[in-house]
Amino acid sequence: MILDGKAVSNKILEKLKDKIEKFSIKPHLVVILVGDDPASKIYVKNKKAAAEKVGIRSSILELNSSISEEELLGKIKDLNRDPDVTGILVQLPLPSHIDKNKVVETISPKKDVDGFTPENVGRLVIGLEPYFYPATPQGIIMLLDEYGIQLEGADALVIGRSNIVGKPMAQMLLRRNATVTQAHSYTKSLEDKIKTADIVVSAVGKKIVRCKMVNKNSVIIDVGIFRDANGKLTGDVDFDLISPEVKYITPVPGGVGPMTIASLMYNASKVYH
Amino acid sequence: MILDGKAVSNKILEKLKDKIEKFSIKPHLVVILVGDDPASKIYVKNKKAAAEKVGIRSSILELNSSISEEELLGKIKDLNRDPDVTGILVQLPLPSHIDKNKVVETISPKKDVDGFTPENVGRLVIGLEPYFYPATPQGIIMLLDEYGIQLEGADALVIGRSNIVGKPMAQMLLRRNATVTQAHSYTKSLEDKIKTADIVVSAVGKKIVRCKMVNKNSVIIDVGIFRDANGKLTGDVDFDLISPEVKYITPVPGGVGPMTIASLMYNASKVYH
Repeated sequence: MILDGKAVSNKILEKLKDKIEKFSIKPHLVVILVGDDPASKIYVKNKKAAAEKVGIRSSILELNSSISEEELLGKIKDLNRDPDVTGILVQLPLPSHIDKNKVVETISPKKDVDGFTPENVGRLVIGLEPYFYPATPQGIIMLLDEYGIQLEGADALVIGRSNIVGKPMAQMLLRRNATVTQAHSYTKSLEDKIKTADIVVSAVGKKIVRCKMVNKNSVIIDVGIFRDANGKLTGDVDFDLISPEVKYITPVPGGVGPMTIASLMYNASKVYH
Repeated sequence: MILDGKAVSNKILEKLKDKIEKFSIKPHLVVILVGDDPASKIYVKNKKAAAEKVGIRSSILELNSSISEEELLGKIKDLNRDPDVTGILVQLPLPSHIDKNKVVETISPKKDVDGFTPENVGRLVIGLEPYFYPATPQGIIMLLDEYGIQLEGADALVIGRSNIVGKPMAQMLLRRNATVTQAHSYTKSLEDKIKTADIVVSAVGKKIVRCKMVNKNSVIIDVGIFRDANGKLTGDVDFDLISPEVKYITPVPGGVGPMTIASLMYNASKVYH
């Protein structure tokens, strides 16, 4: 059965729109774009479009790639202080002369719609309520919940340990009482681990979940998205061969991608003072 | 082979003493004790004694159990500001009218020798250097390293998910490139998971790792410590039956306990300004 991220995302965005319509002051998301990476430009434009669709005000702060780290941190501090700005999102990657960690650390946890600051990550881990959950893992949980997939007691395998997906995904599954294994490039016998897991979240960016590695009750969540040799968008999972073999699977595109947008907009609609 | 926490701890404390002897200004640890729980009193006294042994100044701030939350938070803020205080440790548990999380959150991350604040936990998870690593997991890593036990690529099972041991332990093993599974009360087939793991860290507080559950290459780390029906100190692991079956095992007492003290003193020796 296909987990239809596109449909669930649309449903969430509709609800969000209705909710925000009733707000007397609309949330205001500022997206910072440093330099002119074409892919980043598209992502930023899409986020702005999604925000506008649900009634969130949004601005793009375009900065020259030659901006100094200090100047960028200064801009973020200004936005932290600005009561009219309710969310700040820095589009990655940043130019190499800028320390990404310093940038992320500077964003106020109460405006950190990506949920990447140490304070929000720490709260996620120790069981306090973070101001924002990271968008992609939160979107995946929303999708699993929509289909009533049981997380409590499930053996979940998270492949990949990025700060954006793998690590927060593991924490969010753990909070829902799954038994979580975090796998990565040093992991041995990955095939066996995939085969025996109830839920597999793959966030690697290359073909890694192939035929015969799954079981008939597997729930397969494919976070990877990249172009194959023929230029076709594809994910970590060999979808055509695997989809008949498992219980649930997300397609690429149309699975995790739209859920990430819905989840990000859910975050951007939250206002802390 | 027995992992001799007592011996390794003494070695670390000796080195620490030599190092601190050369400091012109000695670190100053303040331990906050609220109420008069007898076990807490003993723990606090032991921490003070360990600090003094290695040349760390230490004070115990004894507070009446009737202290209000606000007043306690005020005391912590005073200590945060006091340049003569380099480390702050709040002995748990706290009286029920005080929110433990608020207390932990109030400690400055740069004086948080327990490594429990959201900022330090977040840094641990996202791969930044925390100011302090949580004492028990750090002590366990020190012990594993002392015996040259390979962590990279090892299948590690952490049983328990407390903020003090289980969760930071998983993160520290992950940072060392182990494949980490976090198990807890909802975990199914725990026996099989113990049997197939290379490294098992049990932090539950009841007898959970028994005979026939291990393999001959298992490394078993027992964090549990409690008194059995006969009043004898024991751990999560059935030591007498299991120790002949595995490669490495920690005894209780004399394993993780002394390593926690060494690790805490290592933290208390660090000074941030």
